[in-house]
Amino acid sequence: MAGNQEFDADRAQDFRVVGTRPARPDGMDKVTGKARFGADMNMPGQLIGKILRSPHPHARIKSIDASEALAMPGVKAVVTAEDFNADAKDRDVLTNIMARDKALYEGHAVAAVAATSRIKAQQALKRIKVNYEILPHVTDVDAAMQPDAPILHDDMFTQGLDEKPAKPSNINARHEFGHGDVEKGFAQADIVIERDFKTAATHQGYIEPHACVANVGADGMSELWVCTQGHFHVRSQCASLLGMDVSRLRVTASEIGGGFGGKTTVFIEPVALALSRKAGRPVKLVMTREEVFKASGPTASSSMRVKIGVKKDGTITAGEASLNYQGGAFPGAPADFGAMSAFACYDLENVKAVAFDVVTNRPKGAAYRAPGAPMSVFAVESVVDELAKEIGMDPFDLRLKNAARDGSKSSYGPKFGKIGLVACLEAAKAHPHYAAPLGPNQGRGVASGFWFNFGGETCSNLNVNEDGTITLAVGTPDIGGSRASMCIMVAEELEVPYERVRAIVADTSALGFNDTTEGSRVTFSSGMALIKAARKAKEEMCKRAAMMWDIPAEAVYWAEGAAHPSGPNAGDFEPMTIEEIAGSAAKTGGPIAGHHEYNADGAGVSFGTHIVDTEVDPETGYVKILRYTVVQDAGKAIHPDYVEGQFQGGAVQGIGWALNEEYIYGEDGRLQNATFLDYRLPVASDLPMIDTVIVEVPNPGHPYGVRGVGETGIVPPLAALANSVSAAAGVRLTDLPMSPPKVLKAIGATKLAAE
Amino acid sequence: MAGNQEFDADRAQDFRVVGTRPARPDGMDKVTGKARFGADMNMPGQLIGKILRSPHPHARIKSIDASEALAMPGVKAVVTAEDFNADAKDRDVLTNIMARDKALYEGHAVAAVAATSRIKAQQALKRIKVNYEILPHVTDVDAAMQPDAPILHDDMFTQGLDEKPAKPSNINARHEFGHGDVEKGFAQADIVIERDFKTAATHQGYIEPHACVANVGADGMSELWVCTQGHFHVRSQCASLLGMDVSRLRVTASEIGGGFGGKTTVFIEPVALALSRKAGRPVKLVMTREEVFKASGPTASSSMRVKIGVKKDGTITAGEASLNYQGGAFPGAPADFGAMSAFACYDLENVKAVAFDVVTNRPKGAAYRAPGAPMSVFAVESVVDELAKEIGMDPFDLRLKNAARDGSKSSYGPKFGKIGLVACLEAAKAHPHYAAPLGPNQGRGVASGFWFNFGGETCSNLNVNEDGTITLAVGTPDIGGSRASMCIMVAEELEVPYERVRAIVADTSALGFNDTTEGSRVTFSSGMALIKAARKAKEEMCKRAAMMWDIPAEAVYWAEGAAHPSGPNAGDFEPMTIEEIAGSAAKTGGPIAGHHEYNADGAGVSFGTHIVDTEVDPETGYVKILRYTVVQDAGKAIHPDYVEGQFQGGAVQGIGWALNEEYIYGEDGRLQNATFLDYRLPVASDLPMIDTVIVEVPNPGHPYGVRGVGETGIVPPLAALANSVSAAAGVRLTDLPMSPPKVLKAIGATKLAAE
Repeated sequence: MAGNQEFDADRAQDFRVVGTRPARPDGMDKVTGKARFGADMNMPGQLIGKILRSPHPHARIKSIDASEALAMPGVKAVVTAEDFNADAKDRDVLTNIMARDKALYEGHAVAAVAATSRIKAQQALKRIKVNYEILPHVTDVDAAMQPDAPILHDDMFTQGLDEKPAKPSNINARHEFGHGDVEKGFAQADIVIERDFKTAATHQGYIEPHACVANVGADGMSELWVCTQGHFHVRSQCASLLGMDVSRLRVTASEIGGGFGGKTTVFIEPVALALSRKAGRPVKLVMTREEVFKASGPTASSSMRVKIGVKKDGTITAGEASLNYQGGAFPGAPADFGAMSAFACYDLENVKAVAFDVVTNRPKGAAYRAPGAPMSVFAVESVVDELAKEIGMDPFDLRLKNAARDGSKSSYGPKFGKIGLVACLEAAKAHPHYAAPLGPNQGRGVASGFWFNFGGETCSNLNVNEDGTITLAVGTPDIGGSRASMCIMVAEELEVPYERVRAIVADTSALGFNDTTEGSRVTFSSGMALIKAARKAKEEMCKRAAMMWDIPAEAVYWAEGAAHPSGPNAGDFEPMTIEEIAGSAAKTGGPIAGHHEYNADGAGVSFGTHIVDTEVDPETGYVKILRYTVVQDAGKAIHPDYVEGQFQGGAVQGIGWALNEEYIYGEDGRLQNATFLDYRLPVASDLPMIDTVIVEVPNPGHPYGVRGVGETGIVPPLAALANSVSAAAGVRLTDLPMSPPKVLKAIGATKLAAE
Repeated sequence: MAGNQEFDADRAQDFRVVGTRPARPDGMDKVTGKARFGADMNMPGQLIGKILRSPHPHARIKSIDASEALAMPGVKAVVTAEDFNADAKDRDVLTNIMARDKALYEGHAVAAVAATSRIKAQQALKRIKVNYEILPHVTDVDAAMQPDAPILHDDMFTQGLDEKPAKPSNINARHEFGHGDVEKGFAQADIVIERDFKTAATHQGYIEPHACVANVGADGMSELWVCTQGHFHVRSQCASLLGMDVSRLRVTASEIGGGFGGKTTVFIEPVALALSRKAGRPVKLVMTREEVFKASGPTASSSMRVKIGVKKDGTITAGEASLNYQGGAFPGAPADFGAMSAFACYDLENVKAVAFDVVTNRPKGAAYRAPGAPMSVFAVESVVDELAKEIGMDPFDLRLKNAARDGSKSSYGPKFGKIGLVACLEAAKAHPHYAAPLGPNQGRGVASGFWFNFGGETCSNLNVNEDGTITLAVGTPDIGGSRASMCIMVAEELEVPYERVRAIVADTSALGFNDTTEGSRVTFSSGMALIKAARKAKEEMCKRAAMMWDIPAEAVYWAEGAAHPSGPNAGDFEPMTIEEIAGSAAKTGGPIAGHHEYNADGAGVSFGTHIVDTEVDPETGYVKILRYTVVQDAGKAIHPDYVEGQFQGGAVQGIGWALNEEYIYGEDGRLQNATFLDYRLPVASDLPMIDTVIVEVPNPGHPYGVRGVGETGIVPPLAALANSVSAAAGVRLTDLPMSPPKVLKAIGATKLAAE
């Protein structure tokens, strides 16, 4: 759990650049339209790729005949499953990017075409004859778990059971976390509440569709320009799927128009490479919005039961959760993370969370901001809210009484280090928002949330340029302002102005392997790598100054962006600035750099607490958000604007999930709302300004105290909204999204019950 | 002179990859037309830039009125000298890329336009009104040195004289090298020959014109895609010329269609940046061929006198040279290198070379393969040839008798280390070519040549990928096969197959500063950096294996691409391959890399000797090359194909220079042959196959013995051809190029004299 003790509290007293809010490096390019996103790259002679997708949710592919398509003028290549490496490491990804024997969901790729124009490619798709045998399908998680459900994979036998089951099922795995004895705990409780909950599958809703340009040389040397959160991971996956050496593929990450976890895997990239390899020309592939909905990776839907027991004094005696996550046609729903997160905000004697990873005839899920946590926390925090009401205790007081604290044994195993949950709860309780009056049909909800935050493999290069400015090469695509944070941390460490430092996202051939930008890991991991690289560069610069002064290197220290002599030599020389040292580098041994490669450890967990006021229109069931406050522990906010932006963005996505967003499937197993008209994202006019409070409980595992901030913010809103709407509506809502028809129905049901 | 003793003779016995001839990494892309050169980049929304150039060789710019041009639809920006940083470090480059007060040569940039199309930009150029005051001009080096010559720079006072001259002149500097007492030496000689020589200015003749795309963001963050030999140098120069931080400019080098020294500086790049900055859009700028001739950097023309004395036994008693180089409108003709190289092949007691760097109203010169050496060596080797004939000694024997050897004091100062001149001379003398019979009107010429070879600032990154393949990031554009050489050296060092290693040329933000690809420095410098990086990676991989085996790191050694246990643990474990170690890297500390930054020292000098047979057509003066053999010391040929290619390319360019190439200026100071139709490059049908002999006298300063090979090959041909043609024609030719009219005239003059 805890990494090295890296945090330097003394230094943190004197931050000069950390905590400031300089202009963002990508800002001007983005607002002036100059930033180059995935679809903004074109290569000379490129073809356009299009993908043929299954119209059926479940069907055996008996044959594919592409001969007519291939005979069309302008059509240069057709690929099917046969064009990929059958021995690829990740068989699920292999089968997801191009169906092999069966189409497993509506939108599953079946073949692809590269042609000289989009029109020709689209026309060619129509000439590819696929002979399907239609099979029965299942898209609902509970239905998929039934013994008589249509089975997607004949070779799937539930893992994590005491013994291997006799027959295959759609349940890939069972996960269990917890400790103590929940039955004993429930027996000690004065009140026990048990409820069922449902959440819908939602999409990350990034504005930029998946897009790439692939170029495979005649000798197999390949390039890929792609919009992704992890170009090194794209490289690994594509090399494996295409059966090529990793060194032969150079991947460059474009600017990214949103990812939120949805751009952490491959969909079209290996297809573009396979088409280019076959056609001998560059191939550009861009998803339509419909394809994004039907064939990229949404998050899981869930069906959950939560049971919590409490004494009248507010002591929670036991918590239990049973969580079913469907993650689409392949294993990998974040059931485990859901189970681990469910009770993470509480220090409980008896706790148990069991989760199932279930497959259905839907697109294979992908990560979405704190994957798995918002659902289970929604269920737990809803029940906690209800319990507080039952025993007549302030919901913050109930949470504070049972809150996870420094050194608590977490509900998923490890002991927490230094954590900020109590600080968040206290700040939220003291916030003016919490004391503000409410009107009729209005309600207030609060909820907490948790995310692990990851470390992972990280490499960074820092170069001191000949004029003393600094260039940083990082390998983690910047999805939330990390270039600015990197520049700030290096400017802090080298004691130079922020403006003198520039960070770029290096391609996969220029830098060593970096894990993907996910898990809220980048400011922590790449940041620490650069701080360490900067320290190496400082040491080298002190050495160079010492060489020029002809004094021992140990007698030189770094301050104010300059080398200073110390000890007996203190008065002998003027400080030598970074500009001077850099300008003389050729004479003192050559260019000055700092590098750091490591597998980052010690990313501190983070907690947040949200307060939301809503008003429910009893006539329409429409929920209006009146006020919203996010309180979250950042560890240390390197660039507070971005941190606030992350808090706000997480809240807004959680609001959408809570109130409107959902994948709607028909009986025919087809998605009915694959457009932004019908898939209802919250827009600016739906929202009040989201207020933010940055709590800073430094992470001991980072030199500057950084924790991740990107994900925790999406965890509390589902429950906070449910608690708020339930209070406003006077009825407990347990089925997300709380769209007007559902709210209206719940109110109607209540009225009916009351009448 | 000598760097560290790096060469490992034992290791060199066992090379497995070094010295093989694998397929070149850029080969397939180039032959299939996929390689992206300077003009192959396009950015969304880009404008096209065009440059207005002076029609006058020398004129004061009284005013520039661009208002009409700016008013034209589609014209987005006009820049003049005012748009550049008047305090730029290199004032000559500043004034060369855009004339400030005076146009100093025909083709000198005066203003530039960015418009939405090439046509509009060209039309706009015609609407810019420049008011010139025409001044007298001078284009010939001897004329420019006259006291009454038109003066280009009022502030140019010859440097290197005993006292500062009273008035400005076109002679920028005087350089002198040598030792002993030449007058005493000449007095000891039996025969003294003194001759005047002339060489014309020639162009590097690269096929790809200068091309770039610049993109300056609204916040000043800038990118440049450019065809160059040195993108780090381009970055430095442009940042200074534009007045911006180096870190704000990211330069990416395209594939390069020839450079040969001509792409080591900036011409259009700062102009494109200035236009982009002003227009707020990307700007593409591509030179026409005419612009390449008139406004890029050819090499100097020269006017030289050489005097050498020899005893009848072949002992050279003294050598003296006076060398005038004109390098165009700004200082920097390679007069110093010419003076240093002139007698470098000889170990002389008395030697003196004086050279003058002269400006004229011609385009500012740039480097061209062994800058300065071919001219002075042409003069010296011509006189040596004549002396050999005079004393009746074999020209190789005369050269061997006086040859520079290991430990000789060079004619330019330092003592030579281990050198290969004698080995080359002996190999040439023993070559069958030298004994082959000649027919009527045929002649054979031999000559030697020398080049220093440079080291310089170098950074490289080596990354071990997750599958055990290797990615190399180098900062030196590949103009002659260096990617292949880098992969070979790393494959050798890590003992892995060549195919598992891929090298890319990293952009300026991904890697630390690298000096330009010039001076034959890359295989030496970047190669050594990568060998050292590979050694660090090996050490790290041994450490990782030791960690997994739980034995001390010192007990692990690297062999056959794997870590092996040794000592007491030798039998405990199977060797762990690079694939296994790389695959476990995440568990053992993260990604594995090697980096090296240094200022390379110890590039060994190299020598070569050429033999050429020619036939002179007495009717037309046409010179046919019958046979050509290059013998040159490579130190160690890493990839012999490329080394042979360099030998052949150098010879061919020297042949062009010797026989046909020249800048022809009219009385009006205008270039008369600014096209490839009129500027006569040798083409395949002009040439026999150039035979090559690779001599390998290892350079002690490189682990594998590498010396540079790119430049020496152009030094001997001028003299070898002159000696051969003189023998065939029966008359000494001293004025290059030996084009048919000149040969005919010389033959005619001889006949006349004989009649």
